Amino acid sequence: MSDRKEFRDLAEPAAARDAIASLDLTPDPESVPLDEARGRVLAERVDAGTDVPGFDRASMDGYAVRARDTFGADEADPVTLDLVGAVHAGVEPDVTVEPGTCAEVSTGAVMPDGADAVVMVERTDTVEDAGATRIAFRTAVAPGDHVMVAGADIAAGARALGPGTRLTPREIGLLSALGRDEVPVRGRPTVGIVSTGDELVRPGEELNPDRGEIYDVNSTTIAAGVAEAGGEPVLYPHAGDDYAEMERILREAADECDLVLSSGSTSASAVDVIYRVIEERGELLLHGVAVKPGKPMLIGRLDRGDGGESAYVGLPGYPVSALTIFRTFVTPAIREAAGLPEPRTATVEGRMAAGERYAEGRLRYMPVGLLDIGTEAEGSDSDRPLVYPVDKGSGATTSLVEADGVVAVDPDTEYLNAGESVSVQLFSPDVRPPTLLGVGEDDPALNRLLDRLERPRYLPVGSREGLRRLRDGVPDVAVVAGPTDREVDSVDLGGWSRGWGLVVPDGNPEGVDGLAELVDRDLRFVNRSSDSGLRRSLDAAVDELAAERDVSRRALTDGIDGYDRTVRAFESPVRTVVRGDADVGLGLRETAERLGCGFVPLGDQTVTVRAAPDRADRDAVAALDAALDGIDAITSGLAGYSV
Amino acid sequence: MSDRKEFRDLAEPAAARDAIASLDLTPDPESVPLDEARGRVLAERVDAGTDVPGFDRASMDGYAVRARDTFGADEADPVTLDLVGAVHAGVEPDVTVEPGTCAEVSTGAVMPDGADAVVMVERTDTVEDAGATRIAFRTAVAPGDHVMVAGADIAAGARALGPGTRLTPREIGLLSALGRDEVPVRGRPTVGIVSTGDELVRPGEELNPDRGEIYDVNSTTIAAGVAEAGGEPVLYPHAGDDYAEMERILREAADECDLVLSSGSTSASAVDVIYRVIEERGELLLHGVAVKPGKPMLIGRLDRGDGGESAYVGLPGYPVSALTIFRTFVTPAIREAAGLPEPRTATVEGRMAAGERYAEGRLRYMPVGLLDIGTEAEGSDSDRPLVYPVDKGSGATTSLVEADGVVAVDPDTEYLNAGESVSVQLFSPDVRPPTLLGVGEDDPALNRLLDRLERPRYLPVGSREGLRRLRDGVPDVAVVAGPTDREVDSVDLGGWSRGWGLVVPDGNPEGVDGLAELVDRDLRFVNRSSDSGLRRSLDAAVDELAAERDVSRRALTDGIDGYDRTVRAFESPVRTVVRGDADVGLGLRETAERLGCGFVPLGDQTVTVRAAPDRADRDAVAALDAALDGIDAITSGLAGYSV
Repeated sequence: MSDRKEFRDLAEPAAARDAIASLDLTPDPESVPLDEARGRVLAERVDAGTDVPGFDRASMDGYAVRARDTFGADEADPVTLDLVGAVHAGVEPDVTVEPGTCAEVSTGAVMPDGADAVVMVERTDTVEDAGATRIAFRTAVAPGDHVMVAGADIAAGARALGPGTRLTPREIGLLSALGRDEVPVRGRPTVGIVSTGDELVRPGEELNPDRGEIYDVNSTTIAAGVAEAGGEPVLYPHAGDDYAEMERILREAADECDLVLSSGSTSASAVDVIYRVIEERGELLLHGVAVKPGKPMLIGRLDRGDGGESAYVGLPGYPVSALTIFRTFVTPAIREAAGLPEPRTATVEGRMAAGERYAEGRLRYMPVGLLDIGTEAEGSDSDRPLVYPVDKGSGATTSLVEADGVVAVDPDTEYLNAGESVSVQLFSPDVRPPTLLGVGEDDPALNRLLDRLERPRYLPVGSREGLRRLRDGVPDVAVVAGPTDREVDSVDLGGWSRGWGLVVPDGNPEGVDGLAELVDRDLRFVNRSSDSGLRRSLDAAVDELAAERDVSRRALTDGIDGYDRTVRAFESPVRTVVRGDADVGLGLRETAERLGCGFVPLGDQTVTVRAAPDRADRDAVAALDAALDGIDAITSGLAGYSV
Repeated sequence: MSDRKEFRDLAEPAAARDAIASLDLTPDPESVPLDEARGRVLAERVDAGTDVPGFDRASMDGYAVRARDTFGADEADPVTLDLVGAVHAGVEPDVTVEPGTCAEVSTGAVMPDGADAVVMVERTDTVEDAGATRIAFRTAVAPGDHVMVAGADIAAGARALGPGTRLTPREIGLLSALGRDEVPVRGRPTVGIVSTGDELVRPGEELNPDRGEIYDVNSTTIAAGVAEAGGEPVLYPHAGDDYAEMERILREAADECDLVLSSGSTSASAVDVIYRVIEERGELLLHGVAVKPGKPMLIGRLDRGDGGESAYVGLPGYPVSALTIFRTFVTPAIREAAGLPEPRTATVEGRMAAGERYAEGRLRYMPVGLLDIGTEAEGSDSDRPLVYPVDKGSGATTSLVEADGVVAVDPDTEYLNAGESVSVQLFSPDVRPPTLLGVGEDDPALNRLLDRLERPRYLPVGSREGLRRLRDGVPDVAVVAGPTDREVDSVDLGGWSRGWGLVVPDGNPEGVDGLAELVDRDLRFVNRSSDSGLRRSLDAAVDELAAERDVSRRALTDGIDGYDRTVRAFESPVRTVVRGDADVGLGLRETAERLGCGFVPLGDQTVTVRAAPDRADRDAVAALDAALDGIDAITSGLAGYSV
């Protein structure tokens, strides 16, 4: 057995924050072209180098005059001046306005010498007078009227933008006005991401499940998180189980980056490599933190070849845990180094949908889902979204999208009450709570129906579990297939029917023709779990056969090889049959036909969409109801489906 | 006079919105690499193509067993099994777990054949037994314990992500788990920006103020706004006054873009070109909208060479007006085409800092500044930021950063009361209200002091105007230089002293040695406006000289050539002298020395920072106060400064 690390003296979370804060991730400032400066942070104050505008500028279409010449002019008694020329924007004036004369000017034109005001064209008339053009002015103006003097917008030497300013379009505009096409900005901290699991494969590459390979989720998730926080992610090539190569990569990353991250290596050898590099090149600041998840967090300092230093943080391995620790401990440090504030949308206030018990004895970041029910739902007195716990520590990747963020639960909090206010740290400032939460059966027609809604969340927990959750009050709707043994008060929004039965290999090589054969012959079967509506229908059919034969259900199911072999989703048994790992699977005609299998029909079952009574009037539920009215457009394309 | 367009029948703003909504800007979907997918929007549903994990996976470090073999085991009475091998993550198992045996497994390993559960290592002991290794199990497990079966995370065929999903790090993670390295996303609408002003020059290029050239602010501002809204901006080269070239560029932009924008051409010829292109190639939908600013808005449809269509929107010319109309009318269309929602931070609720009268008769987008005073200020009963109007239609670029957004004021609103709630549409979702608002004198030490604060806003309106505004209640602090004629209740936070006088060319070629020469000799002077503290000190010195000579101030100032020639900021008179446009300017020793001029001292004046009494306890004011304690570090580097 390899040397397994223990974490006996766990550091307090505050100590972990302090350790990370003690690391200097701040990169050097840099200069970027103006058209790439949006979102960056100004590294230094920018003062105006010249006057804007750089000349006295006409701010109206009209006539440049000596104001004194217009004194006394009004509608009844206009003053008439000789027109001596015109000045257009972008052209150097070639006229001078002497007393008694005027010059036409366009908005933006340089004021001609002699003129000190502009009369707008609407207050003038053109008069032809013995071949010469004269202009009659029906109003008097004061010196400076409709003239923007040089520097009136921004004077040379004025403070234009301060250091630390986030550059949004308007600041880009001001920098343009100053003629700046290069902008001094804070550097983005470079964050190296080193993948250390032997079994990890980069997305897009070939996967060998026989070797236990899985796709590397954490590297890409964390890389996206680094970019979102204002850092520059660098993904280092995966060294697999070549530990010498992994060590080389870690050293290279430390030399090239402000921060190096890796996540929960499941391999003790990989952990040893990380220790070795930190011990030889820097300092281990902290190992093990009293926080769930995140206990095995590792924080260190690494000396760089160039005399500077890099930081190392080891994240936990489960995707939700890695993202949680990244978001709560590492993101603030990256933002700080980049000079960016935490986005206002990074945290939302919510209220617990139901009571929840805790007895952790240490800080817990509870992954939670949100549901934005607004004040629409009956009896709701708050527009804060509902918050409910997700993920019981399974390490599932799906928890990434089933949870929206985490709630920090203090070590001494034993209970959160239903309705209690909690602060949710979102996984991303761009996360928006779903508008609709559905639970229940998985179904291909439903998958398409959901595409027609805006921001729905659907948890395919099975019909039985779906009804239980609907009763417990968190979801808006449950989708239920087949017979149910649970009565839950709900509003029926509609539904469809689907053909189910036994899925066999193409051509039905075993000649299966019904349920009885499954009991009586030696066939390898693959079932669905008892939460699924398909299983409920199968069990009803088994009960019928048992009654016919006057035996117990158990007597029959004991005869089915694989009755207890249950798989997750509607396609799973069919795929098991396709792979040759079973002779018969429980499934839908739709799936059997789509995946090229034979099908032995056992019946049709209804799928109904049921809303919680206090949510039936919500806009999102009404939208689902409306979408259900058009369900036939979906079911008509699916084998074995009808409305 | 060229043909100037009139806007007699103004369309309602709703009609303008409808016209823009009728244009189809939606680009084709595209496929992007996973590492560039963050922030994009999924174009279609993504179902899982395979099971995740693709194999039954140990989810603990420990021993793979046949659960049945452990039944009955407990601390008091362990069960002991033969160890037959080990399976590590990323390796294909080479052992089979027969009854009575077990195999070591690492987290993530493939479950060896025969085994159906894992016992965690902490509940076991290794027993050496006559040379063979056996494992004692101190607990029983059920089938499936600590095993994640194939597809348990995501089953093949399951709906993973719906169309329209915004891709944040967690969705990137889920896509990684599915092995996707290319993602189908909604296209970004391409938005062409055509610059039409003859006088406009791109930032970074040489500017000729004699020709009335100014930098093109709108193109870069709008391009940044397009990118922020999820579009792809394309800046077309500037055609200057070559109208044939401009026409060619407009046609090219229409062929290449989903939307073409230009902003308020000041040239009638340019407008004619736009009209001609729209009339020949498409349809003018709307010209002139009853909204301020934005009256001259132009909306059209352009046929593309490829049979598709493009849209054209003409924006007003003033930078704040262009950004306002872009933000309120065009941004929603770009977001819609990109499939992005309006960010939650795009709008904030505020309260009017003071009452404001309106009598527009049409919809007005009032540019406003925000001040986030929280509930800190005395007597404040709301945490909504204060809102105050900015920009009186001057067209100044500085309004871009002095305003934070706009408030839509209905045509029939005549008055907004102090404290009234208003909704502010921010110029960018990334705009954050300043934490401190200062007004008053412009000063180089102050510019540096402001660098030490977080998100201050300072309006250099002059000492006199600053005091007036402080009295009226919007700013937190006023910075006042020289003598004042206004008594305003305030808390003195501290200050410094600066040497002022007459700035002359290097070497003082005219041999100026005091104020009297300015009056008595024929020298061209350049002054500051009467709002500035420098001017107040100058006038006090003039008064002294007048008393000495027993004449009126007017008698002396009439003798100064340029006494009424006032320029904007503390550097402006000095720069006028440097340019040779004046013999003497009013200024600071600091500026004279820095810009290489001679200096004739007339005195020292104090600069004091004064807080509004009801704001003196605010955190931001306290931070300013603390920064003032270190002002000597700033003043010690500035000629003529002392504390």
